[in-house]
Amino acid sequence: MNTLLLGIGAWDPEPWRARFQAVLPGWQVVLPGEIFDRRAVRYAAAWKQPEGTFADLPLLDAIFSLGAGVDHLFKDRRLPEGVPVVRVVDPDLTTRMSEYVVMHCLMALRRVRVYDGFQRERKWIDLRDQPQASDIRVGLLGMGVLGQDAAAKLKTMGFQVAGWSRRDGVAMHHGAEGLDALVAASDILVAMMPLTADTAGILDAKLFSRLPKAEAIGGPVLINVGRGGLQNEADILAALESGTLGTAVLDVFQTEPLPEDSPLWSHPHVTVTPHNSAISSPPAIAAYVAAQIRAHMDGQPLVNVVDPAHGY
Amino acid sequence: MNTLLLGIGAWDPEPWRARFQAVLPGWQVVLPGEIFDRRAVRYAAAWKQPEGTFADLPLLDAIFSLGAGVDHLFKDRRLPEGVPVVRVVDPDLTTRMSEYVVMHCLMALRRVRVYDGFQRERKWIDLRDQPQASDIRVGLLGMGVLGQDAAAKLKTMGFQVAGWSRRDGVAMHHGAEGLDALVAASDILVAMMPLTADTAGILDAKLFSRLPKAEAIGGPVLINVGRGGLQNEADILAALESGTLGTAVLDVFQTEPLPEDSPLWSHPHVTVTPHNSAISSPPAIAAYVAAQIRAHMDGQPLVNVVDPAHGY
Repeated sequence: MNTLLLGIGAWDPEPWRARFQAVLPGWQVVLPGEIFDRRAVRYAAAWKQPEGTFADLPLLDAIFSLGAGVDHLFKDRRLPEGVPVVRVVDPDLTTRMSEYVVMHCLMALRRVRVYDGFQRERKWIDLRDQPQASDIRVGLLGMGVLGQDAAAKLKTMGFQVAGWSRRDGVAMHHGAEGLDALVAASDILVAMMPLTADTAGILDAKLFSRLPKAEAIGGPVLINVGRGGLQNEADILAALESGTLGTAVLDVFQTEPLPEDSPLWSHPHVTVTPHNSAISSPPAIAAYVAAQIRAHMDGQPLVNVVDPAHGY
Repeated sequence: MNTLLLGIGAWDPEPWRARFQAVLPGWQVVLPGEIFDRRAVRYAAAWKQPEGTFADLPLLDAIFSLGAGVDHLFKDRRLPEGVPVVRVVDPDLTTRMSEYVVMHCLMALRRVRVYDGFQRERKWIDLRDQPQASDIRVGLLGMGVLGQDAAAKLKTMGFQVAGWSRRDGVAMHHGAEGLDALVAASDILVAMMPLTADTAGILDAKLFSRLPKAEAIGGPVLINVGRGGLQNEADILAALESGTLGTAVLDVFQTEPLPEDSPLWSHPHVTVTPHNSAISSPPAIAAYVAAQIRAHMDGQPLVNVVDPAHGY
């Protein structure tokens, strides 16, 4: 019997089992602690699987990450070599990420937090010299499926948009020099790239020091919707203190949930959201994985396979 | 000498005179109290002009409103009959209005005010069942240049969009029955229409009672970026109290500036902004008016002429 193994360490796996049963009728969907024929497992799906979950599965054809990130998967030192790892980048997740990114760029442009303060004080104050979107440069770090969708929508809203990717290709900037150039020309910097050995801690004091002054929007804005491991939170707080950064919008953190004593919670120029910038609806993810499994069994190649050398 | 008369009752007119001098070299730009040849006045520009400013100008060809609205102009009982009144609808104003509308629709969708509250309490809470934009219906009242631009951008972000206009044509709904149908199918209702005898007070208890429950976003949302005269503020407060309305985002008010004792300032589900959803930059407005004047003197027809029967 065709078998899908669910390696889920972060959430209750039972709703996921039910979702996959619904979209893979006739399949057996199993969890690590259960008794099943390990030779029947053709596919696996994972979110923060326990170490070794996917070892000793001789006929495993692919492992699907139940989200766009895969760093959690590669923490497993017993991950089988040579088995393709596939990222889920479904249109639902992409749409939600762009909602969040476009919204926070607009909120920075239109100074929502400043006007909120005026409202609290019952003050009818119109800031003069409101820039329009075309005056503001948004730099996107990461120009994969998510980055490209956000870029197109930001352009529709009128923003100047540039992107950087570590690999050549789609983006205007690439490589280390390209990164410096992009940062220097970004009033709003949006981190959307994967967490890898090369990107860990990249959002640090050195990078912030290259940002422009962005006076029209009260100082440069950092939006991190990638991974908490990209950012140095002490450096973010220092940069906000010194004025090197004007605002930070953080959906991800070095430790999640963000500890209750983190000064980020109460900083007047920080927006904290609970890593939900782009939660795919679980049924959409299950449907996406099932569609890929069916296509693969029909001889089609897998889509969004991770390059192990790059880690994304 | 070609003369432009500036009838400005709301702001300091001198910066406007300087702007028009810059874009109409060789012209004389005059203010109502000054001495000038009334037969030399070919064009006038106005924002809340003193009563009678434009009387006794025998060769006046057109009056330009220095903004998209013209209700302020028609309050003048001595406005000369038969002289075309032209609305300024420059791309700058349109872009800014769409920034505001798309941003507040996204903020309603993504429950920004709810997450702000969680942040204040240092609570890492992810609301379940976050809808995506395509689950939410935005209804636009007013489908002129501004409404059409906002509609296109809202669609790009994924929202379901429908519009209503009192005149036939561009919109899906029109007339009184069309209005009822649109309101009943709008999770977010955006008022962008002009203030006329027919639209005064249209945003009232009766209209709110037709809104859907819109539970996915905490109740239906009203965004008014048109005119304060469209809304009944007592009815808005009562509807928020009863839950008929979930949220109100108001850029315009029955009395502006909004009086300090208005309960709207401190209502937890109301966002107040100081009538700045779409302030055109004054240089952009002056350039727009100058371009129309030049084209008109070259024999081209005026653009965005107000129909006096409709008042917009």
